[in-house]
Amino acid sequence: MDLNELERLLSSFKNGELSAEEASQQIKNLHFEDIGFARVDHGRSTRQGFPEVVFGAGKTTAQIVGIVERLAARSPNVLITHTDGETFGEVRNVITEAEWHESAHLIRIQRDKTELGVGVIAVVTAGTSDIPVAEEAALTAEAMGNRVERVWDVGVAGIHRVLAERELLQRARVVIVAAGMEGALPSVVGGLVSVPVVAVPTSIGYGASFGGVAALLGMLNSCASNVTVVNIDNGFGAGFVASLINRQWKPTD
Amino acid sequence: MDLNELERLLSSFKNGELSAEEASQQIKNLHFEDIGFARVDHGRSTRQGFPEVVFGAGKTTAQIVGIVERLAARSPNVLITHTDGETFGEVRNVITEAEWHESAHLIRIQRDKTELGVGVIAVVTAGTSDIPVAEEAALTAEAMGNRVERVWDVGVAGIHRVLAERELLQRARVVIVAAGMEGALPSVVGGLVSVPVVAVPTSIGYGASFGGVAALLGMLNSCASNVTVVNIDNGFGAGFVASLINRQWKPTD
Amino acid sequence: MDLNELERLLSSFKNGELSAEEASQQIKNLHFEDIGFARVDHGRSTRQGFPEVVFGAGKTTAQIVGIVERLAARSPNVLITHTDGETFGEVRNVITEAEWHESAHLIRIQRDKTELGVGVIAVVTAGTSDIPVAEEAALTAEAMGNRVERVWDVGVAGIHRVLAERELLQRARVVIVAAGMEGALPSVVGGLVSVPVVAVPTSIGYGASFGGVAALLGMLNSCASNVTVVNIDNGFGAGFVASLINRQWKPTD
Amino acid sequence: MDLNELERLLSSFKNGELSAEEASQQIKNLHFEDIGFARVDHGRSTRQGFPEVVFGAGKTTAQIVGIVERLAARSPNVLITHTDGETFGEVRNVITEAEWHESAHLIRIQRDKTELGVGVIAVVTAGTSDIPVAEEAALTAEAMGNRVERVWDVGVAGIHRVLAERELLQRARVVIVAAGMEGALPSVVGGLVSVPVVAVPTSIGYGASFGGVAALLGMLNSCASNVTVVNIDNGFGAGFVASLINRQWKPTD
Amino acid sequence: MDLNELERLLSSFKNGELSAEEASQQIKNLHFEDIGFARVDHGRSTRQGFPEVVFGAGKTTAQIVGIVERLAARSPNVLITHTDGETFGEVRNVITEAEWHESAHLIRIQRDKTELGVGVIAVVTAGTSDIPVAEEAALTAEAMGNRVERVWDVGVAGIHRVLAERELLQRARVVIVAAGMEGALPSVVGGLVSVPVVAVPTSIGYGASFGGVAALLGMLNSCASNVTVVNIDNGFGAGFVASLINRQWKPTD
Amino acid sequence: MDLNELERLLSSFKNGELSAEEASQQIKNLHFEDIGFARVDHGRSTRQGFPEVVFGAGKTTAQIVGIVERLAARSPNVLITHTDGETFGEVRNVITEAEWHESAHLIRIQRDKTELGVGVIAVVTAGTSDIPVAEEAALTAEAMGNRVERVWDVGVAGIHRVLAERELLQRARVVIVAAGMEGALPSVVGGLVSVPVVAVPTSIGYGASFGGVAALLGMLNSCASNVTVVNIDNGFGAGFVASLINRQWKPTD
Amino acid sequence: MDLNELERLLSSFKNGELSAEEASQQIKNLHFEDIGFARVDHGRSTRQGFPEVVFGAGKTTAQIVGIVERLAARSPNVLITHTDGETFGEVRNVITEAEWHESAHLIRIQRDKTELGVGVIAVVTAGTSDIPVAEEAALTAEAMGNRVERVWDVGVAGIHRVLAERELLQRARVVIVAAGMEGALPSVVGGLVSVPVVAVPTSIGYGASFGGVAALLGMLNSCASNVTVVNIDNGFGAGFVASLINRQWKPTD
Amino acid sequence: MDLNELERLLSSFKNGELSAEEASQQIKNLHFEDIGFARVDHGRSTRQGFPEVVFGAGKTTAQIVGIVERLAARSPNVLITHTDGETFGEVRNVITEAEWHESAHLIRIQRDKTELGVGVIAVVTAGTSDIPVAEEAALTAEAMGNRVERVWDVGVAGIHRVLAERELLQRARVVIVAAGMEGALPSVVGGLVSVPVVAVPTSIGYGASFGGVAALLGMLNSCASNVTVVNIDNGFGAGFVASLINRQWKPTD
Repeated sequence: MDLNELERLLSSFKNGELSAEEASQQIKNLHFEDIGFARVDHGRSTRQGFPEVVFGAGKTTAQIVGIVERLAARSPNVLITHTDGETFGEVRNVITEAEWHESAHLIRIQRDKTELGVGVIAVVTAGTSDIPVAEEAALTAEAMGNRVERVWDVGVAGIHRVLAERELLQRARVVIVAAGMEGALPSVVGGLVSVPVVAVPTSIGYGASFGGVAALLGMLNSCASNVTVVNIDNGFGAGFVASLINRQWKPTD
Repeated sequence: MDLNELERLLSSFKNGELSAEEASQQIKNLHFEDIGFARVDHGRSTRQGFPEVVFGAGKTTAQIVGIVERLAARSPNVLITHTDGETFGEVRNVITEAEWHESAHLIRIQRDKTELGVGVIAVVTAGTSDIPVAEEAALTAEAMGNRVERVWDVGVAGIHRVLAERELLQRARVVIVAAGMEGALPSVVGGLVSVPVVAVPTSIGYGASFGGVAALLGMLNSCASNVTVVNIDNGFGAGFVASLINRQWKPTD
Repeated sequence: MDLNELERLLSSFKNGELSAEEASQQIKNLHFEDIGFARVDHGRSTRQGFPEVVFGAGKTTAQIVGIVERLAARSPNVLITHTDGETFGEVRNVITEAEWHESAHLIRIQRDKTELGVGVIAVVTAGTSDIPVAEEAALTAEAMGNRVERVWDVGVAGIHRVLAERELLQRARVVIVAAGMEGALPSVVGGLVSVPVVAVPTSIGYGASFGGVAALLGMLNSCASNVTVVNIDNGFGAGFVASLINRQWKPTD
Repeated sequence: MDLNELERLLSSFKNGELSAEEASQQIKNLHFEDIGFARVDHGRSTRQGFPEVVFGAGKTTAQIVGIVERLAARSPNVLITHTDGETFGEVRNVITEAEWHESAHLIRIQRDKTELGVGVIAVVTAGTSDIPVAEEAALTAEAMGNRVERVWDVGVAGIHRVLAERELLQRARVVIVAAGMEGALPSVVGGLVSVPVVAVPTSIGYGASFGGVAALLGMLNSCASNVTVVNIDNGFGAGFVASLINRQWKPTD
Repeated sequence: MDLNELERLLSSFKNGELSAEEASQQIKNLHFEDIGFARVDHGRSTRQGFPEVVFGAGKTTAQIVGIVERLAARSPNVLITHTDGETFGEVRNVITEAEWHESAHLIRIQRDKTELGVGVIAVVTAGTSDIPVAEEAALTAEAMGNRVERVWDVGVAGIHRVLAERELLQRARVVIVAAGMEGALPSVVGGLVSVPVVAVPTSIGYGASFGGVAALLGMLNSCASNVTVVNIDNGFGAGFVASLINRQWKPTD
Repeated sequence: MDLNELERLLSSFKNGELSAEEASQQIKNLHFEDIGFARVDHGRSTRQGFPEVVFGAGKTTAQIVGIVERLAARSPNVLITHTDGETFGEVRNVITEAEWHESAHLIRIQRDKTELGVGVIAVVTAGTSDIPVAEEAALTAEAMGNRVERVWDVGVAGIHRVLAERELLQRARVVIVAAGMEGALPSVVGGLVSVPVVAVPTSIGYGASFGGVAALLGMLNSCASNVTVVNIDNGFGAGFVASLINRQWKPTD
Repeated sequence: MDLNELERLLSSFKNGELSAEEASQQIKNLHFEDIGFARVDHGRSTRQGFPEVVFGAGKTTAQIVGIVERLAARSPNVLITHTDGETFGEVRNVITEAEWHESAHLIRIQRDKTELGVGVIAVVTAGTSDIPVAEEAALTAEAMGNRVERVWDVGVAGIHRVLAERELLQRARVVIVAAGMEGALPSVVGGLVSVPVVAVPTSIGYGASFGGVAALLGMLNSCASNVTVVNIDNGFGAGFVASLINRQWKPTD
Repeated sequence: MDLNELERLLSSFKNGELSAEEASQQIKNLHFEDIGFARVDHGRSTRQGFPEVVFGAGKTTAQIVGIVERLAARSPNVLITHTDGETFGEVRNVITEAEWHESAHLIRIQRDKTELGVGVIAVVTAGTSDIPVAEEAALTAEAMGNRVERVWDVGVAGIHRVLAERELLQRARVVIVAAGMEGALPSVVGGLVSVPVVAVPTSIGYGASFGGVAALLGMLNSCASNVTVVNIDNGFGAGFVASLINRQWKPTD
């Protein structure tokens, strides 16, 4: 954040050129820090309810560490996705609370464990191979203050497996379903519950799965009306939006 | 399943008003009713919080009327999407409360107007041409008991237009954004609010918009973490899931 | 090749009823008959177990009638698919037993109703809108000598509907499943039965269904191992191959 | 399977709370074993005629071994597809009968060699490069109790090669055809036989073969009516469904 | 052609500014006539061996007539493809020798019928529905001075039909094969002959034929080495290039 | 924002001609005007150098007229693209200077004809069928104050046609090239000039042109480094950006 | 089929040098030889004018050597494409005349260098990076008895480079053009010559070249009528078909 | 350049066979040097305002060095893109001024630093991961004589970041925007400035970003009229065309 700009804003406020509301709005929107290769968006925590998350792919280790340091200085909880063990080593050198989650390729810093959700978030997979993506979702939801129930390997070719978990599913405030191949599970789960289902296509499969496209299209065309979709393998996004759905919310108007 | 209805049936059976066969058939119909060309899913209202919605495309008028009659006999509010004015005439012959919404190609029967949402649902479009899809979303959300705020034509090429509505957007419990062409608006809106954004790609555009594919891909790859996506032109789905997010919810465990 | 027919021709030739040239032409026609715009494949009945089926699209009415006349002269049962009512009128002028099936856009001549199957063929749809394609499959299977059970509108968003038909499905020798949108039903049905499931994607849907591609990909990637797939909207092909599966078969080696 | 649950079901049956049919149905559907990262579907052997097959890709070696141990404890024959030699070493440490099939990347445990098929299954390739996929099909069919005839390298550019095998093909109860590039062979074979042809597109080719898409589309559009299709490189699926077609089947109604 | 420009060139040649070779080259390359909406390429006949062919789609009738008049003034034979009967009427008003070919949607002016080919061109179709495209090829080849043999409806599902024409095919200098659906016929024909095969995918088919894409990909991936491919439905192009192959050619170096 | 207009409003407010509320609304309207179904972006003229252009497709005639009236009240020149003759009639009822351009499907209001460009803009087509798209570009460039040179039908199959216009092309400040089919012309033109080439793929073609995709991909992969690309058939966009390139520009820092 | 070889076999059989079984096997091998993993098609030389070519990808080295040995026993010239240096080493161990062509990844055995073509074949590339594919074409054409002229790096962005070779191109009996990126060169070359142009798209490029798809589509949509296309990177196929075009041909009817 | 040819031209000029203008034109167009594997286009500097740029991918190191030597002998500034550090070593052995730019994979020789632009070129990225592509653009623009302003990481999910740079953007003569994922930033920037925006999609992203296709389609469908697009990851092209836009230009007619 530009301190001169902040001073200017505050003095404008003091001498009456800006109302309290105006000053507050402008200060809120100025919140980012320019560190050359990145503008760290410190306002995101306020605007979106969670600090900026670092997408590791395509960034150098030095860039990732630089960004994480700035974020961790202001936010107790930080996530780095699409990263690797080597980067984890560098991050833990500067933030010792960092945890490495191998299957999800995710670094998590979770220093604040306050529970913020009104209910539980169920995270479900069609197969064992979908677990890494589902773990990314579950770890994200936990980092954002939610209780998570994991339900692995209940794909539709053995429909009794998901039916056996019907009670658990119907207790959740929101359900995340990760599935590859034909991506049919969200439709079945969607038909069993009365809450939103966040569907995550995974790239599991081969041939005409086209790296998750078959699952993606299946989910977009779901005959269950309560299904929405995020990008292929985007466990993080699913965990994020499920957390917002599960938040206590109070109307302000 | 409607438990009162079930009790009524069982006692009718016990006191001989219904034969075993009749009772069995009617109990089965509490879940779904087989009318030859369709199995009307009467359990959906209980399981999903809203009765089955009729997708009009590819059905004959007679089939639509037949299904609507069964649904309307048990549910005060019914929706038929992807339909036309001629079908509306036939539906209104049997259900006089039916309303025709030309721009959305939607028939709505809304006999119960109880408000069920904790907050308001904002429905936003990038352009004027996206209004029909957005109307489908708004009409659905209203039919499911929500207050809706419509914000038309605030696409990103004139970014001040959406910024001017920031306050309204930040008051909503959930925001629906309909956009065609490059589908960039959900990312911008997503960055402004701390609630879920349900993005609806529309088929508006030409050339390399490929009937909404460009917008769909844009939304799936949104850099705003709170964006989920439904099918191209699926205003109904967006309104449906937004309504579930906006529902009062009480943990049961 | 029909051996009796061949013997008859050879003896006609021997006793002088046919010239060498006539005999040679007619023997060649036992295999196929060249009528200028088509080579009618009379050997197909022997080689494949059913006479050549006429694909109506892209042919003139005169061409269709010409081909049907030749086929009907040798085979009791004939099918014309992808055709229309006008063509039906012309066909019935020459073959009075022809039936018109509006929903399937199919003309059927079924003068031989011998039952040839060892079991029943179940034909299932996910929705009401999938019925036309499923009817094409059912009518084909009947024309090829099979008993057919029709099960309409048991899509996965109301999973109890298909579970309610489990017994019927488990009695079938082969199951045909027609589904559009996400095409998930074959996987669920596949998991319930121990016989082959022939999946037919339909072009029902909109947006990212891409005219049946989403359903097609879903079915190709089915996690149920007993699912095979035919072309989008190819009810005929599904009925054909299901009939061959259902045929009594005796090893010859 | 949950033994307590089973006991409960059996005692309910004994004291008349459940009929024999009800108890049997519920026991059948309960058949899966939750081992954390997987729900091993022990009911699949009963429901589908062969135990669950392990898809190796995307699973850790420890997960594969864990699943195989459970399956092998109840089923004499087990298959692991899409795996590697290293995993084979670990599997053979616990199941000494395991065989490694290099070209098909498949581990097979085949302790029961009872013949179950009514006829022979012919497995055909267009080229030498298609053999690995075809071997996966052949090995699967053998594991499911079938006699298999292998016919390699009879692609259509030398049409006399497949015609030379016409007799062998016409003796089979079902034919599997694996082909890459333009995938034309199933249409030719389909025209020669009166039984179902299960076509497997392979990813052999380059350029506009698009990893098997050209072959897949060719097969889906086959002008031979008896062709059905499985996923690209899905030799296993082809072998599985061919085995079901070749099974002795007795009508139960 | 610009006469002033020609005069200028000729006088430059006369007074020695240009050598005979230079003048000849420049005159040859200047051959086009600017009529506002088109530059009619009069040099094409010299450069390519046949005058410019008019692609009718997207041009007004007046534009087509204008272009044809210029072409017909200099060339005895002219083709207009992708056109309609109405345009034909206008063209015949100015060029009475124009013929209308309904099935190929082609207008042909053929005032010079000199035979130019060294052999015969065989034009083959897989099905009856492919005839319009094949006719476009055949009519083009005839207009360019070739003898053509038409072989209709010999698709690979009845392989004996094409084998029966082997002798005819082996007599041709070049073979054109038009096929839709899976497009397998060129590979089979290619394997039977020792001359080039020009494959024309047609848009015949439905579902996963994707308007001819399946056939196109099949042909591009043909395992027969003598197959080359032109655009979907491009009968004209196939006829054109086959004519050039069939031309008498004399080495000039 | 128009500063004169702003001053006028503020002085009207100061002298009491406008209430605070009225002044505030009108100042907001200097940026954009909310007319229900649209927010007319009056600031665009200032920000982008030309008023908002109305994309007619998907809007009702009443909506188009409503928007045009607001735009024409403040801007002398207005464009409506992707519209039809009927809409033109309604527009001319309110703005009599409106002109209808049939081939480009465009309504133009051009009341200010001041020349603003430093040089000429050349607009080139590969074929006669590409003229409508090129006209859209040319009409747009003229409306934005540019001199335009039209060069029609100089596609690469007759390379001498474009070489003959080399001099004209080399005089232009920027060249627009519209081409369908293989879209090769921009590469050739790009190699001849030292200014930017704006390439517009057109949807002219058939089969594997895929509605302009072939041309689009060709242009995106151009080996000429000075080529940039706009959407398929987007003549307007090409004319717009070419106009900005051709503007006199003065550095302000 | 080699008639001399057949006569030799028959007389060997007659005079008892061969048993009936031996004779029958060897006659069959005149057509093709079954060596387990392959049926070597010895008839191809007769039927197609060149022996079967070995596509190396997806075959083991042992398989390649086995096939080459059989082919080289009967044919002086043999090609192995899509192979590597290691395989070359093994091949040269058995056929010492084998040559390794690194850039084309091709092994060539050329023991017969008789010239068979009526003219020269020009092989042209758009860029330096396209040379490997073009070399595959040139080496193939030489192996089939043709004189070849190589013209490298004359892409359209410097149009004078190809114009400078106009004379050479106009002397050729057939021209092969290899180009990646936008693939525009075949259209320009096609417009300069009056002989067939065989276009080979290469996978050179990045981004929206999609591995050669952009070039492939460009060539399929060429506005030059004398262009035909082979698969992406299929230099071999281009060389093969160009050789057949260049062959002396004598009509036989 | 062919010296004999030049001599011939000059003597023709001297003896009056060619005018000064003719001689000059022909000499200009002859400018390329044939070095076997490449025709180095020395005329490009004159025709296009910058010497030929070497695309490194698919060329051997020896080829690159050979081409660079010829270019550097005549042009002070030379670029090699898509190359690697090893090649750089070889290039620097012959041209010591060569610089290696790791992130952009680009070798730059910049011996002439004259400023040629009328204004500044702003180069903007949506995220940190897009920097390599943006650097390629910036380095190119600098090599072509422009001042460049770099603005990194101002993607639309934190819209205040780009708004904070509005002033800088509005000072530029042209803006380059590199963005991956949904590619929305060019539309927002386009709406803020009145100059051309050159959009570069990057391949940053995963899943449904399809290697940059989502960003590419987003940019092609931009609702901002001043956006043009170059190929995915084509930073070089963007820098090149932006430089041409930024050039001082004087009308010559």
